Amino acid sequence: MNLTCTACSGQWPPVDHRIADCGTSIAYLFEDQFFPGWTVLVLKRHATELFQLSADERSRLIEEVSAIAEALMEAFHPTKINYELLGNQLSHIHWHVIPRLVDDPSPRDPVWTVMHDKQPLRPADLAARIALIRSRVLLNDHGCSP
Amino acid sequence: MNLTCTACSGQWPPVDHRIADCGTSIAYLFEDQFFPGWTVLVLKRHATELFQLSADERSRLIEEVSAIAEALMEAFHPTKINYELLGNQLSHIHWHVIPRLVDDPSPRDPVWTVMHDKQPLRPADLAARIALIRSRVLLNDHGCSP
Repeated sequence: MNLTCTACSGQWPPVDHRIADCGTSIAYLFEDQFFPGWTVLVLKRHATELFQLSADERSRLIEEVSAIAEALMEAFHPTKINYELLGNQLSHIHWHVIPRLVDDPSPRDPVWTVMHDKQPLRPADLAARIALIRSRVLLNDHGCSP
Repeated sequence: MNLTCTACSGQWPPVDHRIADCGTSIAYLFEDQFFPGWTVLVLKRHATELFQLSADERSRLIEEVSAIAEALMEAFHPTKINYELLGNQLSHIHWHVIPRLVDDPSPRDPVWTVMHDKQPLRPADLAARIALIRSRVLLNDHGCSP
C-alpha cells in the first residue's frame, strides 16, 4: 500500500461504481460512460509495472482482464474491445477495458482522441449498468464475487 | 491465419523492424519513434480478443509483454510504461508497449493525443535501436530468441 496513492487510499474509483471482486483486482464501472460499459480493473495491491508482479499474479490478473472483457462482450456486443494499462496520471496498476460499440462515433481511433462531454450516469442508470455487467461476470464463473 | 489480415499476410510490421521472437508473439520496433523505444508485440496466430486465447496462451503472452517492458525499462529508463491492446484499425492481437521517457512532451496524456510528425529512423539508427532492445531482451532470458 502506498499512502500517497489515490487508489490505495480508496479515493478512486468511487465505491458506488464497484462491479465485482475478481481476485487480484476489483472491477469498477468508469465514471464517464460516454463509451457505454467502460470498466476499470484496479489491482488490490500497489504496483506500477507488470514486471513488478510475480508470474502467478500476472497470469491471474490477465485472466481477470479477459473475464471482464468477455462479460462486456456478452453485455454490449461490441465490435472490438480495447485493453489499456497506462498509469500516466495514476501509476497504480489499473486496466481500462473499453467495449467499442456498433454505434461508436470514431471506431478506428483510441478513445482518448474522441472529444466529448463526460457522461456520468444518474443513480438508477448507474445501478442498472453495474447490475448488467455484474450478472455477466458472475455467470461466467471466472472466480469473481459480488 | 486470416488471409485478409495485414499482420497474418506479413504486410505489417515491416520485417526490418523485427526485434525478437518471444514465443507466442514477435516483437518489432514501431515505425514512428517519436516516443523512443515504442515496441509492438504481434501474436503469431490470428485472434482478436484476449478471451479467444487459451489460459495458457494468455499467460505466456502477458509474460512476453512483461519481458519486453522490462527490457525497455532497462534500455530507456522511462518514468512509466504504457501497455495497450486496441485493434481498432487492425484487429489482429498486437500490444503497444510504450516507454514514457523523462523528457516526454506530455507525460500525463496517452500517446495518441500528442500531436507530432512521425519520426521513422534512418537505417543506421533503426539498426542501433533494435540492437539495443534486442540485447536487453535476450540478456533477461525470458525465452525470447533473435
